[in-house]
Amino acid sequence: MAGVGSVLPAAVLFRGRELLVLDQRLLPFQERYIALKTARAVAGALSRLQIRGAPWIGVAAGYGLALEAQRLKDRHLVSGLKRAGEVLIAARPTAVNLSWAVKQIMELVEQSSLKPQALRRAIVRKARAMEREERQRSLTIVRNGARVVPAAARILTICNTGALAGPGMGTALGVILQAHLEGKRPLVYVCETRPLLQGARLTVWELMKAGVGFKLIVDSAAASVIEHCDLVLVGADRIARNGDTANKVGTKMLAVLARDAQKPFYVVAPSSTFDRQIETGAEIIIEERAGDEVRRCRNCRIAPAGAPVLNPAFDITPAGYITGFITEAGMTRPPFSSGIRRQLYSVEAKTRSITTGGRT
Amino acid sequence: MAGVGSVLPAAVLFRGRELLVLDQRLLPFQERYIALKTARAVAGALSRLQIRGAPWIGVAAGYGLALEAQRLKDRHLVSGLKRAGEVLIAARPTAVNLSWAVKQIMELVEQSSLKPQALRRAIVRKARAMEREERQRSLTIVRNGARVVPAAARILTICNTGALAGPGMGTALGVILQAHLEGKRPLVYVCETRPLLQGARLTVWELMKAGVGFKLIVDSAAASVIEHCDLVLVGADRIARNGDTANKVGTKMLAVLARDAQKPFYVVAPSSTFDRQIETGAEIIIEERAGDEVRRCRNCRIAPAGAPVLNPAFDITPAGYITGFITEAGMTRPPFSSGIRRQLYSVEAKTRSITTGGRT
Repeated sequence: MAGVGSVLPAAVLFRGRELLVLDQRLLPFQERYIALKTARAVAGALSRLQIRGAPWIGVAAGYGLALEAQRLKDRHLVSGLKRAGEVLIAARPTAVNLSWAVKQIMELVEQSSLKPQALRRAIVRKARAMEREERQRSLTIVRNGARVVPAAARILTICNTGALAGPGMGTALGVILQAHLEGKRPLVYVCETRPLLQGARLTVWELMKAGVGFKLIVDSAAASVIEHCDLVLVGADRIARNGDTANKVGTKMLAVLARDAQKPFYVVAPSSTFDRQIETGAEIIIEERAGDEVRRCRNCRIAPAGAPVLNPAFDITPAGYITGFITEAGMTRPPFSSGIRRQLYSVEAKTRSITTGGRT
Repeated sequence: MAGVGSVLPAAVLFRGRELLVLDQRLLPFQERYIALKTARAVAGALSRLQIRGAPWIGVAAGYGLALEAQRLKDRHLVSGLKRAGEVLIAARPTAVNLSWAVKQIMELVEQSSLKPQALRRAIVRKARAMEREERQRSLTIVRNGARVVPAAARILTICNTGALAGPGMGTALGVILQAHLEGKRPLVYVCETRPLLQGARLTVWELMKAGVGFKLIVDSAAASVIEHCDLVLVGADRIARNGDTANKVGTKMLAVLARDAQKPFYVVAPSSTFDRQIETGAEIIIEERAGDEVRRCRNCRIAPAGAPVLNPAFDITPAGYITGFITEAGMTRPPFSSGIRRQLYSVEAKTRSITTGGRT
């Protein structure tokens, strides 16, 4: 099961009546798929981080509704989908792609005058289209991003933002892989990304499969490593209209270190990660996850069972620390409020024209 | 086996012919002592981090030579001690307390005209005195430090710098415990301190035993937590004449974050951690430890066995990021070059007068 444009097994595969998901909790030690058949099962896999990464989270939510549409009886179709949408949105509060994807499908449901069976088909088509569009965005983003990567660049990154995080090549890690494919021979400093070690487990797995050079470091070593880096590339879970960015806990650390060391710090994300509804990062809900994620490391206990823990899964990088956003529309530099607005308009206008073109 | 001024078991206990060491690799899950009988055994325990913390490292090295002095035959006494000193110094390259302690004992050996048995006794006396003096420094330091801790202070710290790191109450964590004893009710944000988790394992253990409020966080969460903190307190392994400070990897991260958030960042250390021989941090050797410390977390594998790793155990915080040094002589603020010189002179003058006083 190979992902498009990559040597990796696909993270997510929609098979009509089931969603196959490569269980990311088990990587890199086991490559095992689970089969999900209901929206509730998809929500469970999202909250357990078996599927993760903002773009995949959105796409998986779309497929969750597609699975549900096919299970629901005609008379419960609309009400059942609404409930399923709420269950999915509650699975992860921070990544905007989740609510964005659910909203896309629910708009279709609510505005459609289709009969149940036609509506089911339309939902499945829409969910598949959302994956296709996200893949297309990724492939454009990584080419846009590779332009700012010099030859033999040393790049600092955190978490996993490759093909395991989104369709196509993902976001920030996709840019690095694209630079590698272009022969630029990047060297990646991979933050292990405590508590759930998406860097050590997932990014390392992707880089080894792709043959890209890297060094794994503990997160706090970023402060000494950054002096030797040319740039920092990170993904995003939600971006406010002013550019404030929610991403994996530790991202703000990298942003502050990058500014201090005068290194460029780029956020790589598709337009689906921009939240048009919020003005600043103060409005973003930060998911607080279970204390045992910190008191344990994989299956090992590392702290006394009763130790009080603070475990925010994300942090907010203020816009002022960000050198630029790399999206499918190109590079957006400060001032972000106007730049992001312009960029999103251009993306939406383009999407509308593609969609219209496709329909005629 | 209670430590002086604390409810904790003693980290290190010298018993004449053996050195009992609380195995810090096993804490907090097991409280088990090992008995060391040779300098080589002490060096092994130092390099495996069974004993750790700059002040204890120095004191343990002194006891290592005391053990060795009692084992060596008369005709090998001086040459054997020299070799043992070299073995001890090689165990950990970064903490200056180690070479400082070995040098103190070796000066005694080389300058003495004592007969072998009298020299052995003098070495044992000297090693015991070094522990006593380090304990006395600690108790002075923590009182000096507690002055800058406001009531209900929220304090960010890394690694372990309490009674497990040095005689008495240690350094930075000792300041926090002293503030607690003074009724100031501090709340401590404890960085878990990857890779070896001295924060999650040792600092949490000390704080729970002492009943001090805390929250354990992953290291990179410091970037979001620092906004809610009043100050940062850290220890040190080696301080250059200009104030550049080597300490546990992650310390520089905290220093950069503190400056960015405009919070005071204090280094807490005894005079024995100041290296009079070096002008700046560029001269400090950073110990690079085994990659498996990063590829594993306690006993769990977290990354593929072949993953390349960069594992510097320490980093250098440039003097410009440091608000002040808290030592047994008080608080030293910038400009550090002159301040440190003045402070060390005052400490040494005082020590000389105490020593002289003791001899008369």
